[in-house]
Formats: sequence, C-alpha cells, structure tokens
Amino acid sequence: MAVGIIATLKVQEGKDKDFEAIFHDLAKAVRANEPGNRLYQVCKSRKDPNAYVVMEIYESDEALKAHGASEHFKTIGAGLGPTLAGRPDIQYFDTI
Amino acid sequence: MAVGIIATLKVQEGKDKDFEAIFHDLAKAVRANEPGNRLYQVCKSRKDPNAYVVMEIYESDEALKAHGASEHFKTIGAGLGPTLAGRPDIQYFDTI
Repeated sequence: MAVGIIATLKVQEGKDKDFEAIFHDLAKAVRANEPGNRLYQVCKSRKDPNAYVVMEIYESDEALKAHGASEHFKTIGAGLGPTLAGRPDIQYFDTI
Repeated sequence: MAVGIIATLKVQEGKDKDFEAIFHDLAKAVRANEPGNRLYQVCKSRKDPNAYVVMEIYESDEALKAHGASEHFKTIGAGLGPTLAGRPDIQYFDTI
C-alpha cells in the first residue's frame, strides 16, 4: 500500500516567493532522485495566501524514509525555516 | 494554473468498507471520463480510522466544474451520504 502525506505549512508575511523558490528546487530534486516518490505537489491556498500544502505519495514507508533522509531534503529543506510562521503539520495516510 | 483540492470526509463507525467501495467506483469513473482530472486519490488516515481525504488535481477550474456536474459524480456520489458522519470539508488550492 502506498503512503499519502499532506504537509501543511504557514509562511511568514512577505516570504511566499522565497518559500515557493525553495519548494521549486526541492520538488525538482525529489522528482529527479526519488524513484519511490509518485507525487510531490506544492499547492497554495485560495483562502489564505500564506498557507500551503504539499500533497505527497510514496510507494512505501521505505520510500518515505528515503525522502526524509535524502541529501536534497536536508540541504534544500534547511532554507525553509526562515520562511515559515510555525511548525509544519504532517498528516499520514494509506492510499485506498 | 491547475487546481488542487483536499476533501476531508469523516465516516460513520462501521461504514468504512461501504465508503471505500463507493469511492473505488467513483475514482474509476473519474479516471475514465474526465480528461481534465490529473489526480483523484482516496487516502485513509493512519491516526483516525474513520477519517479520509481525497487528493484531487484538475487542469483548470472548468475541469473542476465538469467534475461536479458529471453524471457519475451525481449518481455514484449520491450513495455517500448515508456513510458520512458530517459534511465534507473542501479546501481549494492553486498548484505551484
């Protein structure tokens, strides 16, 4: 069974372009380097311009672990902190 | 820009298998009949066995409207009501 993730992130006022640039690089690295990733889609809320979600699907828990342990996640993801307004909320699902 | 949807649905105790069977048919119909749909993935929460999300991506607002107006959404979706524990929560996003 595949694993679905919804990561909800709140961005500081005025940091949305920085945030989007980092996620653009991160999404590119995920697609290029993670064969176990099936979906990595960043989305901006239509209701709150500082709210984003990332829809993610991995073919297994191992593929999800490989994502979290990857060099690109650590190095590119490190730039996210200063753009965020709080801790990301991560929800875990099994695909049906 | 594509449209992302996260639909959150709570199911009545013991109705999860009915719910999943209906969504199995609905997802099949969406994939077969909606060229503007790019993703229609039903996911079950790992934290709450009665909570589900549907991750959806449409290539445009028109494609999203076509989904809501489709015969399969109306006929198959009509069976969902008796399985749900409340009104679905629908969040709208622009893909980045």
